[in-house]
Amino acid sequence: MSGEDAPAQQQNAVDQKQDSKPTEEPKTEPEPAPAGEAAATAAAAETTEKVPEEEAFTYRALVLTGYGGYDKVKLQVKKGKPALKAGEIQVRVKVCGLNFADLMARQGLYDRLPSPPVSPGMECSGVVEAVGEEVTDRKVGDKVMVLSRFGLWQEVVAVPAMHTFIIPDGMSFEEAAALPVNYITAYMMLFDFGNLRPNQSILIHSAAGGVGTAATQLCKTVKDVTVFGTASAGKHETISQAGVTHPIDYRTKDYVEEVRKISPKGLDIVLDPLGGSDTHKGYNLLKPMGKLISYGAANMLAGQKKNLLAVAKNWYHQFTIHTLNLIQGNKSVCGFHLGYLDGETELISQAMNAILDLYKQGKVKPHIDSTWHLEQVGDAMRKMQERNNVGKVLLTTEPMPEEEKKEEPAAAKKEDKKKEDKKKEDKKKDDGKKDDKKKEEPKKEEPKKEEEKKEEEKKEEEK
Amino acid sequence: MSGEDAPAQQQNAVDQKQDSKPTEEPKTEPEPAPAGEAAATAAAAETTEKVPEEEAFTYRALVLTGYGGYDKVKLQVKKGKPALKAGEIQVRVKVCGLNFADLMARQGLYDRLPSPPVSPGMECSGVVEAVGEEVTDRKVGDKVMVLSRFGLWQEVVAVPAMHTFIIPDGMSFEEAAALPVNYITAYMMLFDFGNLRPNQSILIHSAAGGVGTAATQLCKTVKDVTVFGTASAGKHETISQAGVTHPIDYRTKDYVEEVRKISPKGLDIVLDPLGGSDTHKGYNLLKPMGKLISYGAANMLAGQKKNLLAVAKNWYHQFTIHTLNLIQGNKSVCGFHLGYLDGETELISQAMNAILDLYKQGKVKPHIDSTWHLEQVGDAMRKMQERNNVGKVLLTTEPMPEEEKKEEPAAAKKEDKKKEDKKKEDKKKDDGKKDDKKKEEPKKEEPKKEEEKKEEEKKEEEK
Repeated sequence: MSGEDAPAQQQNAVDQKQDSKPTEEPKTEPEPAPAGEAAATAAAAETTEKVPEEEAFTYRALVLTGYGGYDKVKLQVKKGKPALKAGEIQVRVKVCGLNFADLMARQGLYDRLPSPPVSPGMECSGVVEAVGEEVTDRKVGDKVMVLSRFGLWQEVVAVPAMHTFIIPDGMSFEEAAALPVNYITAYMMLFDFGNLRPNQSILIHSAAGGVGTAATQLCKTVKDVTVFGTASAGKHETISQAGVTHPIDYRTKDYVEEVRKISPKGLDIVLDPLGGSDTHKGYNLLKPMGKLISYGAANMLAGQKKNLLAVAKNWYHQFTIHTLNLIQGNKSVCGFHLGYLDGETELISQAMNAILDLYKQGKVKPHIDSTWHLEQVGDAMRKMQERNNVGKVLLTTEPMPEEEKKEEPAAAKKEDKKKEDKKKEDKKKDDGKKDDKKKEEPKKEEPKKEEEKKEEEKKEEEK
Repeated sequence: MSGEDAPAQQQNAVDQKQDSKPTEEPKTEPEPAPAGEAAATAAAAETTEKVPEEEAFTYRALVLTGYGGYDKVKLQVKKGKPALKAGEIQVRVKVCGLNFADLMARQGLYDRLPSPPVSPGMECSGVVEAVGEEVTDRKVGDKVMVLSRFGLWQEVVAVPAMHTFIIPDGMSFEEAAALPVNYITAYMMLFDFGNLRPNQSILIHSAAGGVGTAATQLCKTVKDVTVFGTASAGKHETISQAGVTHPIDYRTKDYVEEVRKISPKGLDIVLDPLGGSDTHKGYNLLKPMGKLISYGAANMLAGQKKNLLAVAKNWYHQFTIHTLNLIQGNKSVCGFHLGYLDGETELISQAMNAILDLYKQGKVKPHIDSTWHLEQVGDAMRKMQERNNVGKVLLTTEPMPEEEKKEEPAAAKKEDKKKEDKKKEDKKKDDGKKDDKKKEEPKKEEPKKEEEKKEEEKKEEEK
């Protein structure tokens, strides 16, 4: 995908980086700029010709430099215009979406992301800046949303036109960047595997998260669906407004008991992003003909870096099922991950078209939690990983205002203090699921603060 | 269900039988008559009052007397009118359907059938003969089809009215007895778990069998569905006419290769009645978003009696799946068995109503392979177990004509010879799936021959 087609010169830069690939590199050490595109394949070798003006073309990109904490994703400057293959378009990115897979990838827990250095990012919105050969349905100036396996956290990307969708009138770049992964995931789970029909009941974990919000909205498009949604108490008002019938505070209550109180026979569908022992609980909550849809292993995520205990616990408790048990229970277990659906362009387009129709009818609308500058990607990831978001966490490529960089933001110190607290808490937690035990941050906070401004200023000077 | 409500006197008879429960009883030994109903619960103790005319009431019933070969199912005569509880009706049975679960049960491989002695039989058609209290939607004389967990291979049954469905005009008792289990099974697998939609592709094993025929017909009600169907070559013409797009002779060809030749990307749905290694093959044939629906373990059935090697092999190869594999494959694994869906009356009624609508529109029609007298149940089971049937195998309660009993049918000797051959073959086979390797019997054979006429005549005298 986009990361695979870097010009040869960029590829060389990457190769050099890989030779001295730092795994525990000090946080303050700036990446050499211009940095190379994190290309995963040797396909780039095809495009060896360069024209001088293309070399002068630079753009900023977030690059995962090694597996680990939030600081492993660095802002770098790339040189050289991405070469377009037949069927591809170049997009000037406006807004990028964050997804759980990006967090898993940072810890080395997502095998669809090539080895670092590599740019993460599965979705973005932007404007078409150039069109490759054989592209007939996109033109320069089109506003598009993009879906890719990785590589979209950059100011400029080259992607197959068929992985893009025209942004409908009235949809902002923020909404367009928030929509693809969460809504396609929720849509395919509910209406393909889940076969959701009127009068059914469903459990949505993390109902305030990106997929949770999308799934809740999509459930409301079907008559009389009862939605059980887990979230910390502070988010209950929001998820109720979005359509959750029965909000459950999983931090203070046993969600299995809460569901059984209201729906003793169990549920028709359980959406399970957690994995481990929660998959067992979800399976046991199913009615006959019920469907468990597993779409993640968020329980593996505990703390900033790969937590071997959490991973091991998750694997140990990972759900394994024998078909004879499924037969005797009349149950279904499904696995979904959009990141493994590359190539299924037709299926994805069908889902996207249905979602855009619902958007135009006003039935679904992405809920934005917060938008951060590229420089703030660490804070953005933390917000999501610690489950302090309500709705989608986004990155904007808009330059950070100088005044924000210059001033020493009070919030930054507060953030540092929080980090310290967090580290202590991380050690205590090995479950990962209870990460948002701490008090909720205000929803409408001003996230565009910055911590690593010196590094950034240095890069700006080098440009 | 029906078997649970035997009058106390019958219950006593059962108790006596259980005390001396034979496991390897000689084939020629007749059961004492009148034999008891195989009641599984003590619920019958409620109905202790008897009136003399009820005691004079007798009816014939097939009873599984112990686990083993075809001869373990014996024709017996029961005494006493079944007592009706509130909500129940008494049905004079005309025709009974045979199902794979009955064959599994005979070998002790189906845990939904109580221990012998017990009457098997999950479906039948007949006429309402008496109506219990609180029954408002059935009256004496109504033609009904009945669905039950077991107990319907009898001339008279007492069943909850809600487990019966009115036979539509124009449907014969044979069709009505052939329809419930196979069509509800196929319908729920295809349209609930399978979520079958236009342009999809599906593999139907044993496409000439009861569920296979029903599933093929139901697939044709959806636009442009490609059906791969396995059957021995002699059945290909029939299954093609029924709607199979690509018939595959699994005896001479590798069905996985045959499917891949035509559909390299794989399939949207695989219906798997076989279990064991075939489940793995089916899973691997799935496309992304594909659904494997396991609904049996026919591979466990090899030979007349429980074949420990076949059972062990099936268990050894039984499919076990980890949710992380499902996630990476974007796949679904479902288990279905109507026998474990008791109590889901609403789900079953919805499916049945949809099927009856399709019947009225001429879109589905049960295909009858053959109808046998109760005395011939062994041959009927053999025909099905050896996969020599095309469509449904039925039992009729119609009395066997005296002339058929008197004459020594040429076919009976032929059957004996076949049995010998079969025994030799059974030893060679441990896969179970290839059971119909032998040459096909003619479809339109006259099955109403009888082998155990002496036993039967003895019983008739006792009446």
